[in-house]
This record gives sequence, structure tokens and C-alpha cells, in this order.
Amino acid sequence: MTTPAPHLTRTDGTTYAGMHLIIDLHGASHLDDRGHIEATLRRAAEATGATLLSLHSHQFSPQGVTAMAILAESHISCHTWPEIGYAAFDIFMCGETDPHAALPILADAFETSDIRVTELHRGAP
Amino acid sequence: MTTPAPHLTRTDGTTYAGMHLIIDLHGASHLDDRGHIEATLRRAAEATGATLLSLHSHQFSPQGVTAMAILAESHISCHTWPEIGYAAFDIFMCGETDPHAALPILADAFETSDIRVTELHRGAP
Repeated sequence: MTTPAPHLTRTDGTTYAGMHLIIDLHGASHLDDRGHIEATLRRAAEATGATLLSLHSHQFSPQGVTAMAILAESHISCHTWPEIGYAAFDIFMCGETDPHAALPILADAFETSDIRVTELHRGAP
Repeated sequence: MTTPAPHLTRTDGTTYAGMHLIIDLHGASHLDDRGHIEATLRRAAEATGATLLSLHSHQFSPQGVTAMAILAESHISCHTWPEIGYAAFDIFMCGETDPHAALPILADAFETSDIRVTELHRGAP
């Protein structure tokens, strides 16, 4: 199956390939709950207006989860370290999506207000 | 299946969850060749000393490829824009791996010397 490629993003007169949010959650809960994490990635993708193509996850032992959502507009990744209450997300999106719309979904799902976000514009000339 | 979780990384006295390389390739070739991209991600994972758990990819129309490698040590992602010779990679690794070892693999595979790398330490206190 192929999917139409998203066009380049243009913000404030600058054209770039996509916006990449690097997101760190501290003091987070539910980080060893694979089903919860998968459901949250689905909710996050929907909130941003992205199209979910596939979702993959892996449970680590004794704890920790990796989940990756492949989107028509790029991806969302999640890696968790329940033992320190930390989760690393990144959200890469291009086209007509709003990656920031995922942030309140993550705060709610993982019950933390300590969310640190770095915004990168990828593929700028 | 579960996999032993990697331990926290320690560099120069600082403990953090993982090293995250944000990698931009410009002037790159072979960016619409899904098989080549998958093979390159396998080579890159092997070069870093990581363990590949699964590999997923998607072909866009009329051009462009997304590929994601899920590793025991986190992930490698790739999104390509063949029309502008640009590819966005990110390599997130924890444990006893060397994500920088992937860089010459990418330069060789996509025939460019224009590789721009930003190094992030994720999950530092």
C-alpha cells in the first residue's frame, strides 16, 4: 500500500520538511502499562489530526515499554523508564497537523504536569 | 515476548536515560528505495551494537519512505523527501551502544557528506 506523501510545511515564510517535538515527561505514572500507552498514542495521533498507519510496541522485562506510531505525517515514539518515572516521546509531523495538540493528552494519560518540550524544525534549507 | 530493559547510561558522571541523535542528510541519493533504506537501517543498527527487534516501513506516493527500527535499546527512525534530497533520521539509544557508529553507514548508503547531527541527552535529571 502507498499513501500520498505530505507536502512540505511552511511557517512564517520558512519552508521545512516537518516539525519535531522532543518531549520529556518526568514524575509520570502508568509507564509500564503497554495497553494504556498504545491507547494514548492513538489518542495523541487523533488529537493532532494525523493519520495512523500502524502501531508497534514492545514490553521490556522487568519493566519499560517502547511504542512507535507510524503516521502518514511521520511518527510518534515513546520509551518509558517506570523505575524513575520518566518517559521520552518524540513527535515528528509534517503537513496539516498540530503536534502540540498531543501534549495535553500525554499530561492527562500519564498524570504529570512536568512536560519539557523542545521544538525542532527539520529539513530547513 | 519481553526483552531485558537496558540500564541507564552514565557519561562523565551524569546519568541519563539515553542518547538521542537528530540527524539531517542533505544532497542525499536513493531516498525512494524502500529496500535500500531497510537494509541500511539494519546495517546501522548492527554497527552501533544494538539489537534489532523489528523493522517497519511505508512507501509514500509519488515518492518518499518512512522506516522505523525498534531496538532493544530504543529506536532508529527515517523519513525521506526524495524531491529535495533530504532525509530526517533520529537514533535513540541507551545501554552499551554507540549511536555515532551509524553515521558513516548513512553517509555511505545515501552518498552524501552533508550530515548534520544534534546530540541530545534524554532523561537527565
